[in-house]
Amino acid sequence: MNPHVAPVPLNKAYRLLNHGPTVLVSAAHGGVRNAMAAAWSCALDFQPPKVTVVLDKATRTRELVEASGFFVLQVPTAAQAGLTHRLGNRSLHQDPDKLAHAGARLVDIDLPADASVGPGAGPAAGAAPAVAAGPVPLVDGCAAWLVCRVLPEPRNQGIYDLFIGEVVAAWADARVFSDGHWHFESAPPELRTLHYIAGGQFYAIGESIVVPDTPAAG
Amino acid sequence: MNPHVAPVPLNKAYRLLNHGPTVLVSAAHGGVRNAMAAAWSCALDFQPPKVTVVLDKATRTRELVEASGFFVLQVPTAAQAGLTHRLGNRSLHQDPDKLAHAGARLVDIDLPADASVGPGAGPAAGAAPAVAAGPVPLVDGCAAWLVCRVLPEPRNQGIYDLFIGEVVAAWADARVFSDGHWHFESAPPELRTLHYIAGGQFYAIGESIVVPDTPAAG
Repeated sequence: MNPHVAPVPLNKAYRLLNHGPTVLVSAAHGGVRNAMAAAWSCALDFQPPKVTVVLDKATRTRELVEASGFFVLQVPTAAQAGLTHRLGNRSLHQDPDKLAHAGARLVDIDLPADASVGPGAGPAAGAAPAVAAGPVPLVDGCAAWLVCRVLPEPRNQGIYDLFIGEVVAAWADARVFSDGHWHFESAPPELRTLHYIAGGQFYAIGESIVVPDTPAAG
Repeated sequence: MNPHVAPVPLNKAYRLLNHGPTVLVSAAHGGVRNAMAAAWSCALDFQPPKVTVVLDKATRTRELVEASGFFVLQVPTAAQAGLTHRLGNRSLHQDPDKLAHAGARLVDIDLPADASVGPGAGPAAGAAPAVAAGPVPLVDGCAAWLVCRVLPEPRNQGIYDLFIGEVVAAWADARVFSDGHWHFESAPPELRTLHYIAGGQFYAIGESIVVPDTPAAG
């Protein structure tokens, strides 16, 4: 990881996803690591922070998420558009060297000791997975990372391919996200986030628009 | 509605949300109409197209969605940043003239006759709501609109404030979305989509990045 990576307070973690970037989803289990691209990921709650992500049944990453009970959402940059598209277009099922061929470098990190029994555990938030927390793989070079513990929801996962996770740790590249805010306007343009459409076409995030907190007349 | 509005084929409707724009959510029931802003909305499936949206229990819009079984997601433009922020910051509960004060103009449209028993109805997708399809309110001036039928999921709605909808009709402003693609680069900049962070700060969507569909070496 680069020297600019800094922790993000959990109560600000939703802001890493609030503007709708395409993400990379990574997971590991039994010595196998993988990462894929996902345009369908979204914040779900502020505190404890929760997220949703859609993981097709055909993906190897989903198997690793289900087996380990954890996934990482990371926010790739404009410089990683090619990497993101390659991670989204090939499966580890077909290409055992997918990560190397895509040009992805994964870094293992150890989870906080209490990540498997995080603050959202309990009947209201879904039962904690009965797995030991192990290292999780982060894709190097991204703008932000959110490590998530699966809150098992079998009906959502089975019918809609929809997974809910509670964020247990988050980091960002402080050149582009600090003090709870993105700073795209002052950061190098290659650190802008990616927003996928289809057919290899993305948009980078653009210009800042600030609306004063003054009520309309009337 | 303006003369540029054109229907979007349902199998392309996911592309209206794929890049993660902030949306406006509108609904009507019993003569009451309302609209709110939501950053937490996401595509969920291609065909039939489905979406997710998070609707807080405190919102009047949620009550109208639950009562009517329908909601509209619309994609506001950079020109509507102030409108979007105002619709997200005040509640119809507190301000009976919220829509007028926010500067929102709603247009009622009649749903297709079969919208309440759309192609996703059935046990696998959730039971169709037992309500008659009525007019739904669209916020004028947006870049795109998706009319959605609620697929009732009581556990998601109760625990996570998470609603799943099936898209039954979609339109877009053809100046900025046509032939299944956004055309921000050739459209007026005030038609760019909005991506909310916090505290009145949005980003407009930015520049197009196209990745050729060629595999990486190796």
